[in-house]
Formats: sequence, C-alpha cells, structure tokens
Amino acid sequence: MDLVSAVKSRDVQTVSAWDREADVVVVGLGSAGVCAGIEAASAGASTLVLEAAWRGGGTTAESTAQIYMGGGTPLQQACGFDDTPDEMFKYLMASCGPEADEAKVRAFSDGSVEHYHWLTDRGVPFEQGFVPYEVSTMPIAGASLSFTGSERAYPYREIARPAPRGHTVQRDGVGSGEYLMQILTEQFERSGGEIQPNTRSETLVVDGDGRVVGVVSKVGSDSCLVRARRGVILTTGGFIQNREMLRWYAPEVLQCGRPIAAETSDDGSGIRMGIGAGGAAVRMDSACIVLGFAYGNRDNIRGILVNGQGQRYVNEDVYQSNHGEIALKRQQGDVYLIVDDSIYQPPPDDPSLAGVLYPLLGVGETPGQLESELGMPSGSLQHTLEVYNENASKGEDPYFKKEACWLRPLKPPYAALDLRVGNSPYSVFTLGGLHTRVGGEVLDAEGVVIPGLYAAGRTASGIPAQGYNSGLSIADCTFTGRLAGVSAAAASSG
Amino acid sequence: MDLVSAVKSRDVQTVSAWDREADVVVVGLGSAGVCAGIEAASAGASTLVLEAAWRGGGTTAESTAQIYMGGGTPLQQACGFDDTPDEMFKYLMASCGPEADEAKVRAFSDGSVEHYHWLTDRGVPFEQGFVPYEVSTMPIAGASLSFTGSERAYPYREIARPAPRGHTVQRDGVGSGEYLMQILTEQFERSGGEIQPNTRSETLVVDGDGRVVGVVSKVGSDSCLVRARRGVILTTGGFIQNREMLRWYAPEVLQCGRPIAAETSDDGSGIRMGIGAGGAAVRMDSACIVLGFAYGNRDNIRGILVNGQGQRYVNEDVYQSNHGEIALKRQQGDVYLIVDDSIYQPPPDDPSLAGVLYPLLGVGETPGQLESELGMPSGSLQHTLEVYNENASKGEDPYFKKEACWLRPLKPPYAALDLRVGNSPYSVFTLGGLHTRVGGEVLDAEGVVIPGLYAAGRTASGIPAQGYNSGLSIADCTFTGRLAGVSAAAASSG
Repeated sequence: MDLVSAVKSRDVQTVSAWDREADVVVVGLGSAGVCAGIEAASAGASTLVLEAAWRGGGTTAESTAQIYMGGGTPLQQACGFDDTPDEMFKYLMASCGPEADEAKVRAFSDGSVEHYHWLTDRGVPFEQGFVPYEVSTMPIAGASLSFTGSERAYPYREIARPAPRGHTVQRDGVGSGEYLMQILTEQFERSGGEIQPNTRSETLVVDGDGRVVGVVSKVGSDSCLVRARRGVILTTGGFIQNREMLRWYAPEVLQCGRPIAAETSDDGSGIRMGIGAGGAAVRMDSACIVLGFAYGNRDNIRGILVNGQGQRYVNEDVYQSNHGEIALKRQQGDVYLIVDDSIYQPPPDDPSLAGVLYPLLGVGETPGQLESELGMPSGSLQHTLEVYNENASKGEDPYFKKEACWLRPLKPPYAALDLRVGNSPYSVFTLGGLHTRVGGEVLDAEGVVIPGLYAAGRTASGIPAQGYNSGLSIADCTFTGRLAGVSAAAASSG
Repeated sequence: MDLVSAVKSRDVQTVSAWDREADVVVVGLGSAGVCAGIEAASAGASTLVLEAAWRGGGTTAESTAQIYMGGGTPLQQACGFDDTPDEMFKYLMASCGPEADEAKVRAFSDGSVEHYHWLTDRGVPFEQGFVPYEVSTMPIAGASLSFTGSERAYPYREIARPAPRGHTVQRDGVGSGEYLMQILTEQFERSGGEIQPNTRSETLVVDGDGRVVGVVSKVGSDSCLVRARRGVILTTGGFIQNREMLRWYAPEVLQCGRPIAAETSDDGSGIRMGIGAGGAAVRMDSACIVLGFAYGNRDNIRGILVNGQGQRYVNEDVYQSNHGEIALKRQQGDVYLIVDDSIYQPPPDDPSLAGVLYPLLGVGETPGQLESELGMPSGSLQHTLEVYNENASKGEDPYFKKEACWLRPLKPPYAALDLRVGNSPYSVFTLGGLHTRVGGEVLDAEGVVIPGLYAAGRTASGIPAQGYNSGLSIADCTFTGRLAGVSAAAASSG
C-alpha cells in the first residue's frame, strides 16, 4: 500500500535501548486516547500519549460533540424522557447490525448513565433542554438533548421505546468538540499523564512470546523507541483518509468523495500496526455515510425520496446516516428528493454551507414534466406521487410507514433536489477496525488475545459495528477508551 | 474465535527439528493447490501438498466444474464466438467491482487462452458444443460452452461485447469437478509432487527476518513440523463453514443458511494462518450469493421479480449470482417471483432437488388477489403488472431493460414463488481473503510482501473481488494457483 515504510512488527531483540518508558503508552490523542489516558493514569499507571500532530484533538475536536448516551441519564430525566438500558440495548442491536457485538452493546447500554456522570464529574457540561424532534436533530443554544438517530422511525419505534439520546457539549451555544477535548485533555494532565506531540508511531515492538512491549515512533526523521511496561493502546482513529485502504477494504465509500474529518489524519495507522502484530481487523467495509438532506431544512422530510425509476424506496424520516447507507448501498447512489413549493427553500447565501447543500436539479408544474426532466420512465414519478398523496391525505403510508407527523400531500409545482452520489455531499467515515474484547484487548484471527495490545474508538470495531446514529462515535470512543485504559493499567508488567 | 488452538505464527527458534522438508509446501489440495503444485514441481522444486482430509479434491471436486475462460479460446472459436482479452477485461472489471483488482483481471484476461491450452494439454477435456442462452446456463451433454454470467444483460451488454465464457469439464455428459480434480491430481503426481493426506495445518513458522519458513501441522494428535525452503502456498479455500468468521467479517451472509461446499472444510484456516503471520485480509465481506430461481425453469426469467412493496427492482435476466447479491444486500432478502400459467412449473418429484426449489407462496386470479395474499400494499403489484405488461407487449422494458427475448405480458391466473431469504435457498461462498500480488505473494497491511508466503484461490482475494459469475472461482483457483506455484518455485531458499 506504499504508505510508510513500517513493516509488520519489530522484534524486541533488535532494540538495544529505549528512548522512553511508561507503564501504559497510548497512541493518538483523540477522545478515545484521552479517556484511555485519564483512566490509566488515575489507576496509578505512568501514562504517556504519543500524538502525531503538534497538538491533540483528533476528529472529535472538529466535530459538534454529540455523545450518544441513554438508559435514563439525568438530562433525559430532566427533559421528561423515560429511558432504560434495555430499551437502549434493543435499539442499538437493531440499528448497529446485522450482528452487532452483543457484549459490547450490553456493556455500553448498561454503563451509559455511569458514563454520563463520569463525564460531568470531569467538567463536561450539558445544557438542560430538549430540541423538539420536528424542529431539529442538532442542538440549539441551551438545549443539549436531541434525537440523533432513527428511534422514532419505522421499524425501530416498534422494536424499542423511542428516546432522544444525543447529548451535545456546547460552548457559546454551539456544539464544540474542541471544547470537549480541551476539558478532557486538562483532566488527563491533571491526573499525571504526559503528552508527547509531533510523534508519529509506526510499528509495534513484540517480544519472543508475542507480547507487545513497545512502539517505534518517529520524531521528525529521528526514531523514538518507547517501551510500554503494561500495554500499548491504539487510538489513532479510522482510515477514511487512506484511499488505498478504502480501495481494498471499503471500495463503495470511494464514491462519496467527502470524508468527515478532512483535516485530521485518520490514515489507518493504528489498524495497520495492529494487523502487523497479528491482530484481526473486522467489519472493515462498514462506514457511517451521512446523506443530510434534511439538515438545513427539516421540512424536506415531508418530501419523497425516489430512485432513478421514480420509485420510493424508504421512509424519509429515518436518520441521515441511515439515508446515506441505504442510498449508496441499496440504490447505488441514484436518488432524488421531490418536494413542493411549501417545502422548498432556496440555498442560503452562505458559502460555508456549500458542502452540505443539495443542488436543485429540476422543476415541473406536473409530475410528468418533472419525470421527463429527470429522465425517469414515463408515468413512473406521476404514479408514485399519486399514490403517496392519496395515502398522505389519509395520514397513512402503507408502503414505508413514515410517521404521520411528516405526511402531507405534495402539490404542484414540484422541485427535485439532486441527491446522487458524486453530485451531492455524502459525508463519510469508517467504522471497521481491530477485533477487540469488551475491555479493549486486541484479538488475533483465532480470537486469542494479543498480550499487551489494546485498541479503542475507531481503531477498533466497536458499538457502531455497522449502521450509525450521530453521537455514537464519540460515545464509543470515550466509553471504550476508558475500558481500554482500565484494562491496560491493570495488566502485569511485561 | 475459539476454533483451533493455533496462535499467530511460531518462531523458528522454537523448532528443534523438522519432521519433513520440501522446497515448496502447499497447504490444501483443491484446484488452487493442485495447480500450484503442478507448476512448482514442473519447475524443478520438490513439492509437498499437505491435505487435511483423507484425500484431496476440495470444493472443486463437489462442483460442476465450470471454468470461466475467454478472450478467444478454441472452444469459443469453434462455436462461432468472437471474443478478445479486452472485451473479457471490460466485462470482468464491470462485474467484479467496485474496484476490482485491475492488475489481476488484466493478467487473467490476457492469459485466459493460454490457460485453456495449459488445461487441455494436461488432459482436461471440453466438449465442442454451445448451449443456447435461452435454453440454459448449465452445460448439456456434448456442449461445454455456455453463458455463465450477465454478459447479455443490461448494463453489461453495453459495456463489453457479450460472449459465453463458461467452459465445463464433463464426464458422462455431466459437469464433474471430481473428474477435473482426478486429472489434475494425476498430473501433479506425474510431475513428481507428493501428497500427505490427513494433515491439518495450523500455524506458520517464521524466522527472525519475518520470513515464512515452514508449517506446523497435526497428523491425528501428533504435531508435524514441515520446513519450506522456498515458500508456503496457502490454498485451503474460503471460510463459508466458519460461522464465527462469517459473524465478524460477512454478517449478512449468515442469513442465507445454505453454504455451497457443505461437505468440505472451508473453515478459513489458511486466511487465519496468513493473518497470524501479519498478512492483510481484504474484501472479507464479499460473497458469491446465488439465487438460482431460473435454474430448474429458465422460463422464470419471463416472470417479474418484486419486493415486499410490489415494486420491480432489477432486470430479471441478470445472472443468478447477481440476483442473490441484489436480493440480499439491496432488498434485504424480501423478494418474490411473479409468474403466470404459461411459465409456472410444479416442482419435479425429485427429493434431490429440494435444495434448489423455490416454494409456491400464493396464487391469484387477479393481481389484487395475489397482492392481498402476499400482504403487499393495495394496488402495488397490480400497478407493477399493468405497467410491465403494457411495455412488454411493445417489446420494451424502460424501467430495467430486460432483453427483448424475455419480454411477454403475463396473463392471469398468477402465481408467486417465495424467494425470501430464510424461506428459499440462497447458496453462498466467500470471496474475501488474503491480500496478494498478481504472483500470489501475500502482502501485509502496508502492502509489503511477506517473504516466503503465498496464497491462491479462495484463500486470497482474487479475480471475483466482489460480484460473481459462475466458473470464476475454479478459473481463479487454477489460474492464480499456477502463478503462486511459479513464484514460490522461483524464490531463493530461506
């Protein structure tokens, strides 16, 4: 793959002297790494984080800091929502599958209220308000709680009782991953941990028993050999920036063209180091694919999504990350949003929004005009609109069961927004990674633990094994980062 | 994964004495292993094949021995088909993607005529006749050549000039993988190679430079340490029999329930050994998924496929392996075949066919009766049939472009065959595997060759990286097996 010159792992017998030592060495200072570091240092382990950039933050620092938590958090309760770990578990098993990792989802759901307290105890703030579902799935000033998934959409609402689980960290009224990382990084340093920036880790060091005992890194062009007495925790993020890895592991994603985390280096280095030490990488085709057509205009959910044959194919009220996956993987990205005058909003005159706007493709006084403009088979869109309107006027959607609050007949004139992949933004990051136990221990292809090696966050395959809700990645990073930190600190020295 | 006790790879320093030695050690005697062995032995390398079962054959021996070859083979020419390597290349790049391995597909297409001669020179027979496309995609007595893919279906027919490329080895008028393996195994033994049966290989042996130098195997409960002076070639097949691997790498496949190769041991052991030595496994979610609804009754292609909303979703004349993938991955396996009296055939009174028959689910004098019986939205199937019939009467299919030879209006009464996953046979085997160069050299996660290690056939990710045509697996096994055998024999001794 022609990326860096590191090969597999390095035999400890070739190491004549270490440049540094710590009980626990964490590779990468994003939200997984910093939480791993806090827990390891708090447990009394000397803890060193090696960060490739000049400062930490990772992809979390570029995000809006949504954290998916539930089961009855204080914020959920304050806003009047009755949630339980079991309802959260049922929803996640249905929405993160097929074959979500049951042990991980169970631990995550059962531990979510405790995780909320762990964060707030460390100074992470949540605003005590709820954003009404019909208004937005993004936080607004003073309200941190919102729906950030398909909890209310069919079929999920029949599988588990819906509850909003997006908890957004705000600063000055807007979601701020930068602020979240600032708080957590201060906590890490206060707990005695140390950060070494500008240090790019390349290879793991393994002893004769197959135990990982250190890391080979580069500081500039100098190598830096770091011994890890108890364990190495890989938290370098996913591989969305690595086109060669995408090509071999997740080729469909290459069509999307707009990775989330554009300015960070989710280059897969942690996953590759883990594979080099014999670790298995699983679910590597999985990705969060966001088609956020309702992001700027929630009323767009009242429109209808159709494919190139003019057929509806999904209930429009599923969450934006479901839409991306369904549009790309089931409809080959050949999809359009049909709206009417009461829904359509011209794009705001704000160049910063260019990346999340969906272009107007055509207009028509009649469905026939529009379908002809879009090159759909004659009569196709017309029939779809007739059937949709007739049912919507009765408050019904027998085909896809969109919730009644979004159902209203569409009236001429009509407009079509272009949601085709390649023409419109499909935002994406990877979900596959190293195969781990709940505690973060990396497993080889036989399911056997590789001693001394841990992974968390997007470097591992975690809670969102496949399928996604907003907030799940930072929730998974902070939660599984903590577990890996506890595990590594408790390990005996190698 | 709790399967065998093997862990990662074994350090050669722990090997005090070898039980056996050879220049090239091949693990697994299927069509990939035997062709690797023939080429290695013919190049003058002492060659030993370790086979887990009491005799070889692998999945190939259970198959009908279709081999996908083209570019102008003597059989294609004898039957009047004009094919070129470029047309074959274009078709395979379109049907084995996205992101098929261009270098492999190029070598395979350019080398296909030579591969045909290599096989026939070694006694592999092909019957000089063609099976008409409208009649069957399976061979008939005296005719080895047939279409075994979607070459004539939209959109492929617009991408590359269609040609039949399925070449079936027959004995007594039926396709026989058993016969193919018998011929090739005799060739291997005649070239001086040796086979050690009842030997289950578990772990690779690696020296201090990371070079693979041998294999740890078990004969009964005794371990057998085999030194490989030039290289080890892993050809143990895929992992369709390993439910734990399916769960972590290809979870959607678990719904299918009917693996091809039910009696062999495609347990992923070769892939797992390769990962243990630091090899990268790619495209692990890919599978050949066959929904062979036209297998017993080719007229079924004149019916229409609909999903649970009564919508058509594909041109019915694509090949059966496209149908399986599209039905499972794009329609969640919720699909039905609607036929009329002129098409419907009651199941033959032959219990051996139970695994490839698709159950009758409902009948209706009118589309409305049938859609109500199937629980589809009112009017949905009725509309689909009206539109299909109107267009078919004009010889057109503006929605999905089924070829005109299959278009004919359907007349009442109607019948629905149940093609839903779980109710009907979806036959499946895996396509993902170790990442290799064209010559079979196994690559680590950085794209660097692991010295001494080769893989071929379904143990590697090969020509059918994703997407499938019948005959591609044996073609890929025999072709890439040969390349790996040549590479390993030419390597310098470790």
